[in-house]
Amino acid sequence: MAQMRRAGETSDPLGAKASVGRVTLVGAGPGDPELLTIRAVRALMSADTVVYDHLVNESVLALAPDEAELIYAGKKSNHHSLPQGEINRLLASLALSGKRVVRLKGGDPFIFGRGGEEIEYLYQQNVPVEVVPGITSASGAACYAGIPLTHRDYAHSCVFVTGHLKQGGCDLDWTALVRPHQTLVIYMGLGQIEEICAQLIRHGMAAALPAALIERATTPEQRVLSGCVSELAKMAALHLVQPPALIVIGEVVRMRARLGRENCSLQQQVPRVLGG
Amino acid sequence: MAQMRRAGETSDPLGAKASVGRVTLVGAGPGDPELLTIRAVRALMSADTVVYDHLVNESVLALAPDEAELIYAGKKSNHHSLPQGEINRLLASLALSGKRVVRLKGGDPFIFGRGGEEIEYLYQQNVPVEVVPGITSASGAACYAGIPLTHRDYAHSCVFVTGHLKQGGCDLDWTALVRPHQTLVIYMGLGQIEEICAQLIRHGMAAALPAALIERATTPEQRVLSGCVSELAKMAALHLVQPPALIVIGEVVRMRARLGRENCSLQQQVPRVLGG
Repeated sequence: MAQMRRAGETSDPLGAKASVGRVTLVGAGPGDPELLTIRAVRALMSADTVVYDHLVNESVLALAPDEAELIYAGKKSNHHSLPQGEINRLLASLALSGKRVVRLKGGDPFIFGRGGEEIEYLYQQNVPVEVVPGITSASGAACYAGIPLTHRDYAHSCVFVTGHLKQGGCDLDWTALVRPHQTLVIYMGLGQIEEICAQLIRHGMAAALPAALIERATTPEQRVLSGCVSELAKMAALHLVQPPALIVIGEVVRMRARLGRENCSLQQQVPRVLGG
Repeated sequence: MAQMRRAGETSDPLGAKASVGRVTLVGAGPGDPELLTIRAVRALMSADTVVYDHLVNESVLALAPDEAELIYAGKKSNHHSLPQGEINRLLASLALSGKRVVRLKGGDPFIFGRGGEEIEYLYQQNVPVEVVPGITSASGAACYAGIPLTHRDYAHSCVFVTGHLKQGGCDLDWTALVRPHQTLVIYMGLGQIEEICAQLIRHGMAAALPAALIERATTPEQRVLSGCVSELAKMAALHLVQPPALIVIGEVVRMRARLGRENCSLQQQVPRVLGG
């Protein structure tokens, strides 16, 4: 059975190195290394091996011990460096050879992170697994851009959806996405932004509904473009927006200007509570 | 204009105490103090005053300096200790008198945390504000219960909604909530669980759709009950489930049993990376 051992615990009742092998799926958050959780820091600091994705910040990787092995598993949009099946097998074999493996993912491992697939495979292979949640990109981007995802007057629900579907097409459930009093957050939608916005409007969304595009959320390079749904694709092209970028659509986007966050600047730094 | 000053920075170019007064809205996460972010820890450690909600863990409050003032702002379901307007005015007056105020909320301040309302008021009063995201309860509960919120085979989107509406009634957008390949997470829905499940089924949800009820997620007292939508209200009554509890509905709930997390136990502890 999967164990829920604490990251950072090294006690091993059997005294055998092989018996402590495990995989800890860790959400690294949206970008700012200060958005790591304490539990994630602890897991990293006691890792033998870190298998990390494209979006993970270097200063986060630096928290692993000097002797830890760092393995890049890739995953740019549409360009996986390692196929998912190989990542699964790699994680299992490392853990079964006794390594304390941290599988480090941007955002939260259970929200568009494919954590479910990895954990399922590991369980089938009798590998002890634990999962450390991370700040999902929608939360991070919303807070750093000054856009509340819910608000009593504007949005009673929020929906997270991915614009980057496996089959290459974009067959979202448009009717469910076009609802009043709802904030819509689209992960990985930049590549299909024109089709997404056109389909939303075709399915009844007001063309003038406020929308924002948040590039590299919570990093020093964060850019926030806001306008209305019908303009969003043009704005993305005009400003050469690059992934990772998040699309936020809904009345709550109006809040941003009112909060005066148009020109916020952020400083990124290695966590200072660590190491004294 | 609202400032995005780093929590923990104390440099003040004007050298005047009054000018550093500000409010930092901080998400404390779902319960486990180890799910605090580094940035949240830093904000707490440099607070003059902490205004906190019902769901915040005591060991989180203990991170504030000994001389910091702790103010309880309440908020049990349907029983606000301080009305929202009074909380807003309290935050503004503390900050305008020069205090570094941390407004500490369970979960994430911008997902059902009323952070939008507070920040809007503070901005109107020219109070510098910053927002630190937190792990929202859905993420924390999902990871600790072993239920991925999205999964390539089962759920391409997830929707967060509150079951505790202002008017006392429960007029959710049922049609949007009953969709295939979607995970539905209902915050604060325990009090209306019978009506919620009945309405979902009335609007076309399969009565046998897997569902889980997660009580006190990520704490040592976490309980996870799983079954199907039609049984959920009875299970809640039979097992005397108390708030805070989260409802998760969707095919992804099937993953839980497959991950063998039925009997996970968690140990809660004060963060150990701090102070040594």
